[in-house]
Amino acid sequence: MIIVMKPGAAKHSIEGVISKIKATGLDVHLSEGKEVTIIGIVGDKSLVAGINLELADGVDKIVPVTESYKLSNRKFHPENSVVQVGGVSIGGSELAVMSGPCAVESEDQVLATARAIKASGAQILRGGAYKPRTSPYSFQGLEEDGLKLMKEAREETGLSVVCEVTSQKAIETAVNYVDMLQIGARNMQNFYLLKEAGKTNLPVLLKRGLSATIDEWLNAAEYIMAEGNQNVVLCERGIRTFETATRNTLDLSAVPVIKAKSHLPVIVDPSHATGVRDYVAPLAKAAVACGCDGLMIETHPNPACALSDGPQSLTFEQFDVLMNELRPFAQLVGKTL
Amino acid sequence: MIIVMKPGAAKHSIEGVISKIKATGLDVHLSEGKEVTIIGIVGDKSLVAGINLELADGVDKIVPVTESYKLSNRKFHPENSVVQVGGVSIGGSELAVMSGPCAVESEDQVLATARAIKASGAQILRGGAYKPRTSPYSFQGLEEDGLKLMKEAREETGLSVVCEVTSQKAIETAVNYVDMLQIGARNMQNFYLLKEAGKTNLPVLLKRGLSATIDEWLNAAEYIMAEGNQNVVLCERGIRTFETATRNTLDLSAVPVIKAKSHLPVIVDPSHATGVRDYVAPLAKAAVACGCDGLMIETHPNPACALSDGPQSLTFEQFDVLMNELRPFAQLVGKTL
Amino acid sequence: MIIVMKPGAAKHSIEGVISKIKATGLDVHLSEGKEVTIIGIVGDKSLVAGINLELADGVDKIVPVTESYKLSNRKFHPENSVVQVGGVSIGGSELAVMSGPCAVESEDQVLATARAIKASGAQILRGGAYKPRTSPYSFQGLEEDGLKLMKEAREETGLSVVCEVTSQKAIETAVNYVDMLQIGARNMQNFYLLKEAGKTNLPVLLKRGLSATIDEWLNAAEYIMAEGNQNVVLCERGIRTFETATRNTLDLSAVPVIKAKSHLPVIVDPSHATGVRDYVAPLAKAAVACGCDGLMIETHPNPACALSDGPQSLTFEQFDVLMNELRPFAQLVGKTL
Amino acid sequence: MIIVMKPGAAKHSIEGVISKIKATGLDVHLSEGKEVTIIGIVGDKSLVAGINLELADGVDKIVPVTESYKLSNRKFHPENSVVQVGGVSIGGSELAVMSGPCAVESEDQVLATARAIKASGAQILRGGAYKPRTSPYSFQGLEEDGLKLMKEAREETGLSVVCEVTSQKAIETAVNYVDMLQIGARNMQNFYLLKEAGKTNLPVLLKRGLSATIDEWLNAAEYIMAEGNQNVVLCERGIRTFETATRNTLDLSAVPVIKAKSHLPVIVDPSHATGVRDYVAPLAKAAVACGCDGLMIETHPNPACALSDGPQSLTFEQFDVLMNELRPFAQLVGKTL
Repeated sequence: MIIVMKPGAAKHSIEGVISKIKATGLDVHLSEGKEVTIIGIVGDKSLVAGINLELADGVDKIVPVTESYKLSNRKFHPENSVVQVGGVSIGGSELAVMSGPCAVESEDQVLATARAIKASGAQILRGGAYKPRTSPYSFQGLEEDGLKLMKEAREETGLSVVCEVTSQKAIETAVNYVDMLQIGARNMQNFYLLKEAGKTNLPVLLKRGLSATIDEWLNAAEYIMAEGNQNVVLCERGIRTFETATRNTLDLSAVPVIKAKSHLPVIVDPSHATGVRDYVAPLAKAAVACGCDGLMIETHPNPACALSDGPQSLTFEQFDVLMNELRPFAQLVGKTL
Repeated sequence: MIIVMKPGAAKHSIEGVISKIKATGLDVHLSEGKEVTIIGIVGDKSLVAGINLELADGVDKIVPVTESYKLSNRKFHPENSVVQVGGVSIGGSELAVMSGPCAVESEDQVLATARAIKASGAQILRGGAYKPRTSPYSFQGLEEDGLKLMKEAREETGLSVVCEVTSQKAIETAVNYVDMLQIGARNMQNFYLLKEAGKTNLPVLLKRGLSATIDEWLNAAEYIMAEGNQNVVLCERGIRTFETATRNTLDLSAVPVIKAKSHLPVIVDPSHATGVRDYVAPLAKAAVACGCDGLMIETHPNPACALSDGPQSLTFEQFDVLMNELRPFAQLVGKTL
Repeated sequence: MIIVMKPGAAKHSIEGVISKIKATGLDVHLSEGKEVTIIGIVGDKSLVAGINLELADGVDKIVPVTESYKLSNRKFHPENSVVQVGGVSIGGSELAVMSGPCAVESEDQVLATARAIKASGAQILRGGAYKPRTSPYSFQGLEEDGLKLMKEAREETGLSVVCEVTSQKAIETAVNYVDMLQIGARNMQNFYLLKEAGKTNLPVLLKRGLSATIDEWLNAAEYIMAEGNQNVVLCERGIRTFETATRNTLDLSAVPVIKAKSHLPVIVDPSHATGVRDYVAPLAKAAVACGCDGLMIETHPNPACALSDGPQSLTFEQFDVLMNELRPFAQLVGKTL
Repeated sequence: MIIVMKPGAAKHSIEGVISKIKATGLDVHLSEGKEVTIIGIVGDKSLVAGINLELADGVDKIVPVTESYKLSNRKFHPENSVVQVGGVSIGGSELAVMSGPCAVESEDQVLATARAIKASGAQILRGGAYKPRTSPYSFQGLEEDGLKLMKEAREETGLSVVCEVTSQKAIETAVNYVDMLQIGARNMQNFYLLKEAGKTNLPVLLKRGLSATIDEWLNAAEYIMAEGNQNVVLCERGIRTFETATRNTLDLSAVPVIKAKSHLPVIVDPSHATGVRDYVAPLAKAAVACGCDGLMIETHPNPACALSDGPQSLTFEQFDVLMNELRPFAQLVGKTL
């Protein structure tokens, strides 16, 4: 942590800051420049968390030099993490593909989808039973009945299943039915929910918030990991910008950035990011090309009748074509699919 | 709801869309332009919620023409709503000022603050007992012990109190201590929490999400109101943009926009929006000048020692000066303070 | 300028960076922390502009500690600047109001507007003769004929006039007709145009770019001032965000931020920021309340027939009402109107 | 164009709007819904450009249904355009790679770079002679001397060359030296410059503005094309968002969106988008995978000494490795490299 003093800060202001820091037991390094004086803190900066140096006399600004996340930080865990979801490994040599409908609607829909995506090579079935919707008057999900259908599909097909949870109660119910919990974008900084997910022993898929920086996203992962659950997979799903041609702006740079800053696996969801079926395939290929560990792609037996997000869902045929197109891209980046 | 067909859409595609709509019992109006054909839906558009017209053959796009929020919509409730918080009215002729520390830290801190802000003319004490923090290693709040201190301050001073709640459990506890529940920016689309707040009979202060549109914000209010609780106050607290000179960008346009679209009261929090003490006073005056119903302003007995957000907190003296400066502005817009 | 080394950077990497800096004649201060080592540069940092320290072995990041703008920086010019525009002072005790149509359309329109706004108390007539429009097929302005009409209005009414310039040729023409040149938002980083404006002896109104940080804005002013023209007035006119209820998001925080960082006057344009007539008055009051030096407000004899931006223009009656409402706000912040 | 009337708009308001439209010679289609009435305009909507329907009594909003760009619109030009740059085709079966330094610095630098990138398979040399820089005190480019060096490199190596132009004067000079003009992000809405570029017979590389929507970008292309120059290539180079881990956010969705909306070729610049050398290669692969027509990648003989943007430049070795890695990706999308 570095304290930058205002230009022309008085000698007694500088000494005041130094003595505040030293009172915590830390040491300082002083750098007196022609225009400004800079004070570096040597040692464990958490010791100064209780004093507001920004408000001390003569201080211009405080510049942090280390990240606040530790467990998710590659600096302290240089090897890639591999997360097990049922029998599927995410973060290793396999490209993990999660697919299924935005919302679970019926037994027929879920089973038909599970069979189709399995036949095309996907390993994990997704499907929302608790749906966070902008308006209270939109379809809110089948809740536990939806989870039961997901479990039934798992039993029939052997696919692993992932479902979003939106409350502690939903977590308590979901752990009985699914292989992986999903925390959605709107709940990325619902810290209570993150802690509850961290207390389970299920892997957690953590979607990036609509306006979350990568730093905040890794701190959200840290909330889960600090509870003892190290099995976190990150999912880039588009951020909110001024552009309206796509629903959100898919930030594929997040893939190499996460790979540099963290050891956690990262997957990409081009369906929610774009909101447009025709853009899913090119961006899925791009995601694989830049090194993601997996994909989440929406499929539906009849997108024109989907209760939620139909316009972005692929038909089974479209999904099958895409999976075949993805294989050589996966191969080029050293992954199997 | 309007369906815009693609240029040159085939006659049978147009007829296909029309018959889908008519199958739901609705009627259409057809507008055949030189370049494109447009189909308007006549009647209750919720009847077409189950069919994905966007995916029908030949459709270019769907344009909604009415808002999805109803209870919070001024179109259906033309008069301003006035919300009672303890003995304080928000949305009427009184300018409501909420003040206090970001985080409740100690009895001394809370009581000293309560006495000081009351002496300066504030009507409501704020103070966080459940703190949503970016990092799990930052101070997380005193929880129920903090609520007890807030209640104690209320009993001594007669101020009403408002506290943020971050989970169903926090709501269950807080209803025993506070006059108003606050839903913070990070939880604005935590729909489960909104519903739980809607089931209480306490007024709710709903902060705008960091990247929430005003439309989404009013839909979030709708979640609370649809549960039967009509006592919602909105709080603009800055949105996330590319600018870094302030922590967030205070969107004061939201005040007249909310006044046009909704009957709910709206207050402004310049402290969290800017993150910089020196910018709080000018923006508080601006907020009053453009017609807000109240302010939320952070104060602390010793900002340099605050455990959270010290750099934006006013001292008691600064707050007292500000309150005196605000009075003539309030008067100019027809409010008492 | 501070160089933060990577955790565990090798001794020879640290020494390499130090010797690179010392080779330029500068001195360093070394701060060896428990986790990271930090190197501060002492002296004129422009000497290291030619070496890319970010790429040197072991370097994590470079943190600048001083602003790159000097002439516009309050640190080196503590008193407020007052800019003369014809007989009007901007930045002193007078609140400067610029008003008029978005686009100059006809003699009748300009003269009627000039008379009306003068009668209501405005001091400066605005009107676009060179219009930057998103589509090449939209009305592009009357060019020199428009400037002639503006000059005619000036001669009749005694108002000062300001017009936007969009090219060197437009500057060469405009200097013969106007009292102040305007650089629009889309040209805020058209550095060639900024330099040309800096070579004239006319004051320059520099609008903030749609996605310009305040730092970039002050650097754009620096381009004008570095050519010898110190008469720059800044104009906040809204930034681009995700919100769609207003055309742009008016960033009123920019007013106190500019006042803290720069000595230049700053005015506010609520008309272009919101794009909605009903929101202009409340935000104009807010702008005055937070300390701006002036306003730019669009008026039109018949907004329903305006060739450009009609929906945000006030009628003369609306403008007159607003001016009367603004006076007591101006008085409260110590300005005359 | 569709006019949405306010709920409960009076019959005479509706008739007023209709008669205004009919007065221009256009016809309307009326759609009277239960909540709102909608009026569609039939025919050439440019006829109503002069009347501000948004301000007519009872009007709620106007919804455009067709794009304002025509020449760049795929609807009116279904086949892909192929643009010739010297002997290189962009938009056909070849993947066009432009490479070179951000700024031209010296003969040695330019020639060494030209030889190296040619050896690695690039077809076009890039290099800035007119540099738009945030601060007037940063290196501004060698101007005509830089263009001469670019031409010299072209003559020796046979590479085509592209240089940014920032003023009419720069265009007049550059046409004597280069094969393609580049309009940079900051000048994307410098409409005067766009028109001047449209009057030359050189192909134009049009970079996306930092906060430009795709619609605005295509309208900017339209400015060039409306002057008679159809040879426009678009370049996605990142947009401005709240994220700070990369300099900008590379919006790869723009590639399939442009392909859907326009027939113009589109290339991608991952160097300027990320600002970080390590992220260039993965995003270059992603860009190819999602269907771009080419890449712009910065290289420098000695990035650690570059006068501009060194941290994002690749060394010749890194560029050579990347080109070899890109070839199989190009092949997968049916392009040769």
